[in-house]
Amino acid sequence: MGLIHQLLVVRASGKLADHQRGYPRWELANGNLQELLEAGVGGVILLGGSAAEVALRCAQLRRWAGQPLLLCADVEEGVGQRFDGATWLVPPLALGRLYGREPERAVALAERYGQCTGRDAQALGLNWVLGPVCDVNNNPANPVINVRAWSEDPMAAGVLAAAFIRGAQSKGVLTCAKHFPGHGDTSSDSHLTLPLLPHSRERLAAIELPPFQQAIAADVASVMTAHLMLPALDPDRPATLSKPVLTGLLRQELGFGGLVVTDALVMEAIAGHYGAGEAAVLALEAGADLVLMPADARAAIAAIAAAVQNGRLSRGQLEASAERRQRALERCGDRSAAASSDPEGAAQPDRALALELVRATLEAMPPAGDSAGAASPPTARQPGINLIRLDTALAAAFLPPTAPALARPEARGWRSVLLESRSPSLWSGIPTAPLALDRLGPGPVLLQLFVRGNPFRGHAGSAEPWPAALRQLAAAGRLAGLVVYGSPYLWEELRPLLPDGIPGVYSPGQMPLAQAEALNTLGSALGLGDTGSGAGFTD
Amino acid sequence: MGLIHQLLVVRASGKLADHQRGYPRWELANGNLQELLEAGVGGVILLGGSAAEVALRCAQLRRWAGQPLLLCADVEEGVGQRFDGATWLVPPLALGRLYGREPERAVALAERYGQCTGRDAQALGLNWVLGPVCDVNNNPANPVINVRAWSEDPMAAGVLAAAFIRGAQSKGVLTCAKHFPGHGDTSSDSHLTLPLLPHSRERLAAIELPPFQQAIAADVASVMTAHLMLPALDPDRPATLSKPVLTGLLRQELGFGGLVVTDALVMEAIAGHYGAGEAAVLALEAGADLVLMPADARAAIAAIAAAVQNGRLSRGQLEASAERRQRALERCGDRSAAASSDPEGAAQPDRALALELVRATLEAMPPAGDSAGAASPPTARQPGINLIRLDTALAAAFLPPTAPALARPEARGWRSVLLESRSPSLWSGIPTAPLALDRLGPGPVLLQLFVRGNPFRGHAGSAEPWPAALRQLAAAGRLAGLVVYGSPYLWEELRPLLPDGIPGVYSPGQMPLAQAEALNTLGSALGLGDTGSGAGFTD
Repeated sequence: MGLIHQLLVVRASGKLADHQRGYPRWELANGNLQELLEAGVGGVILLGGSAAEVALRCAQLRRWAGQPLLLCADVEEGVGQRFDGATWLVPPLALGRLYGREPERAVALAERYGQCTGRDAQALGLNWVLGPVCDVNNNPANPVINVRAWSEDPMAAGVLAAAFIRGAQSKGVLTCAKHFPGHGDTSSDSHLTLPLLPHSRERLAAIELPPFQQAIAADVASVMTAHLMLPALDPDRPATLSKPVLTGLLRQELGFGGLVVTDALVMEAIAGHYGAGEAAVLALEAGADLVLMPADARAAIAAIAAAVQNGRLSRGQLEASAERRQRALERCGDRSAAASSDPEGAAQPDRALALELVRATLEAMPPAGDSAGAASPPTARQPGINLIRLDTALAAAFLPPTAPALARPEARGWRSVLLESRSPSLWSGIPTAPLALDRLGPGPVLLQLFVRGNPFRGHAGSAEPWPAALRQLAAAGRLAGLVVYGSPYLWEELRPLLPDGIPGVYSPGQMPLAQAEALNTLGSALGLGDTGSGAGFTD
Repeated sequence: MGLIHQLLVVRASGKLADHQRGYPRWELANGNLQELLEAGVGGVILLGGSAAEVALRCAQLRRWAGQPLLLCADVEEGVGQRFDGATWLVPPLALGRLYGREPERAVALAERYGQCTGRDAQALGLNWVLGPVCDVNNNPANPVINVRAWSEDPMAAGVLAAAFIRGAQSKGVLTCAKHFPGHGDTSSDSHLTLPLLPHSRERLAAIELPPFQQAIAADVASVMTAHLMLPALDPDRPATLSKPVLTGLLRQELGFGGLVVTDALVMEAIAGHYGAGEAAVLALEAGADLVLMPADARAAIAAIAAAVQNGRLSRGQLEASAERRQRALERCGDRSAAASSDPEGAAQPDRALALELVRATLEAMPPAGDSAGAASPPTARQPGINLIRLDTALAAAFLPPTAPALARPEARGWRSVLLESRSPSLWSGIPTAPLALDRLGPGPVLLQLFVRGNPFRGHAGSAEPWPAALRQLAAAGRLAGLVVYGSPYLWEELRPLLPDGIPGVYSPGQMPLAQAEALNTLGSALGLGDTGSGAGFTD
């Protein structure tokens, strides 16, 4: 049954010890993992661990497999987004915004973004980058795509994604256009439920499909399916399990000859509806080559074997999929030797590119260089409250205790208040004055908001009234400055509310490097720039 | 100048990339580090990084040095305390409490504690464990020693520390008795200021010295000095820089022939008073063999060289120190080959010992097995507020998002509220009703308090009125249960305040494994035990 095993990609932690797994329900324990690899399972998706540790892990997995292996990860924003020590880049949507102002520069940067990601992935021992996202984020309320997309515009998204593919694949790794046929215009999260895309074929051809067509033209090695319903193409089954979508549209109409891989079958939208074994069979029947994260790998193998026995699946079809997998491995020159990863090289990030991207995509209000006319804010240089909003402070990779967003203001006497999903409430319940200022303490308030997804959904469905809070602070003469990290939509909502002379900055990136640059930009007014005192993060 | 370089132990991050350093002010960048090692610097103290990554790092440092190297870390509570993936054990004071009930079992466990630490350190490539703490924690207000000590009693502390030394050194690593001549009875933090110990020689002989004498009798390889003033021994200089203390008391009276190493000279209490170069010279003059973390390694080297030139230090003395270092390296069989560390072995923790220690040192109220008479609390099984107090949620190793303290109650419908140093306030300012219950929301309250040091000092000098808060919740009929993780002193303060039938648990350990056991113990009353649903951490 080696043929069937090859078509599975299972999930494992990038950390070595079982107890270090961040998601023990989804990540196989080492005993199971080793057994499955020895039996011939064809790929592993990794999450967690530092870059150096993942390099060790990849070598270990290849040793267990004893054969070439697909090793992949969701490294959409640089390998450092997932694996500390490698290069962490601004999210793709940052380049989509830059494309509106400087298209050639944006395309050149997207290609270098791909090169950097490919190089880092190689150093870790990964041979398959699960990106670029080719979804067009034309729905700002999208809770799951958002800044992961390259643009809100189909053409820009396609041009940038293609540049990324060229860059990454030039470094000898595979890439993956996702989530076919387009997950940008959804307002529910397919990790939880099955979103529905009610669009016609014509609309899909105009908005959703062009980036995938450009990715295919750029010779993308693989395409990942989306867990969503497209009644115009298939009234019965989600795209991941739909023959009209995978075989009809993707293979036949768009002519894609590479690897088709499902999104994680363990997601509730699929596993909950179809069961672990049947979902895998349906995906292969529909035309997928590889099954990603089946809810139960052994059940999937047994169900596929039974489907071959009873004729639902032809052995020839599975052989064709295995052949595509083989060609992909040859294309990226996979070496089965453990020596293929380079732990020390994995921790040598391209800080210059990361910084260039941060600087190129930062936006300031008033615009940089335009400070002559702006009055210094009344509160400038008097320390106050450094109010930071984030989803959770637990294991927040972008907010170590040395993060500039904390350390810079604190070194200058500001008191940080962290507002996150499990904090005691700071909300008054009064719509026009939503912040309970008596709980915040006196002084000017620097607002630093870390928001990636739908800014007004917040956590667990609660709305966070930041526009009203901004107005409240401004009316009280207490607003010292605003920084939005992540969501351009929140920035665009808040920017017009900034009073004259109160500085605001938007950074698409949330990482420490972006914080340092944002505070440098805000710094002239508030005295929060890098003084070289060593308290900053950039040294 | 290779002779002088050998006597320095510099600090580096256990992570490979410069930007990953958690303390860039104290941790050398790789360029400087490599230069110093190539010039012959004799040791490195490491902090940060996972066990597997540190194993890579140790191999890298040995390669740079090209000669046997002392590689050490403050792994006082198992190597997993500092380096994720290795074994994380309960703090030593847990065994001191057990010793009061079951002395033989406590000593046997302390020896296995040492064996486990030695084995894990070996696997990482470390050859020098900076423990045991031999301070007698007879001052519960001690902000810096506390649970790191083995006991509040001199005899017990000595017996347990000696057992640890035997265990660890049997695995081929060096140990270090600290902080000589005793840091247990201080109420200020030598990281910040210079504490004063006003005791007579007789008192020192009765309380402070016995554990060090037992450690020396157990053949401890090294002793670390304390940054504190002992006017009875030396009215002029802190112990670290005092000839009467290091040469007179330690070498001559106690007859210690091993390595004497300073505590970190970079600490404000030393560096701030004496300067980087002069502090190093004074330490060697006083009788130290090795200088740990000089504030500026190059300044220290230059100052020591000048002191040799002008006759303040004799070359013979430095050669004797280098000889002691050499003997220590031979004793632990240091191999300079990069192959000496074992990244995969480094991430194979001894979970059985960790669990046995957690279970042996857990305390329950009412005592376990005594639940027949206890009324089920009125609030049992009705979910409410899971109020967690901790110093900081940022990079809290014991509180990943999957931590049982969060995940168990949340899986059963409890809402977690995290109270930490940067949270919006939950305090009312009313002494008899200090919790602002209106900000907390309705329902029963499960209190989980993570406190290691002085419980009533809290963060940055603020007092946290937990006894009054407990009374307030009890009076309101809202107290569902109490768990104290860490400080026995907070537990002893709160335990008598628990109303009949309200369960309480104390765990010396704060790590996820300890949380799972504590909640299992509390579980029968509150329904928070492990149901095997997979939401827990113990699998």
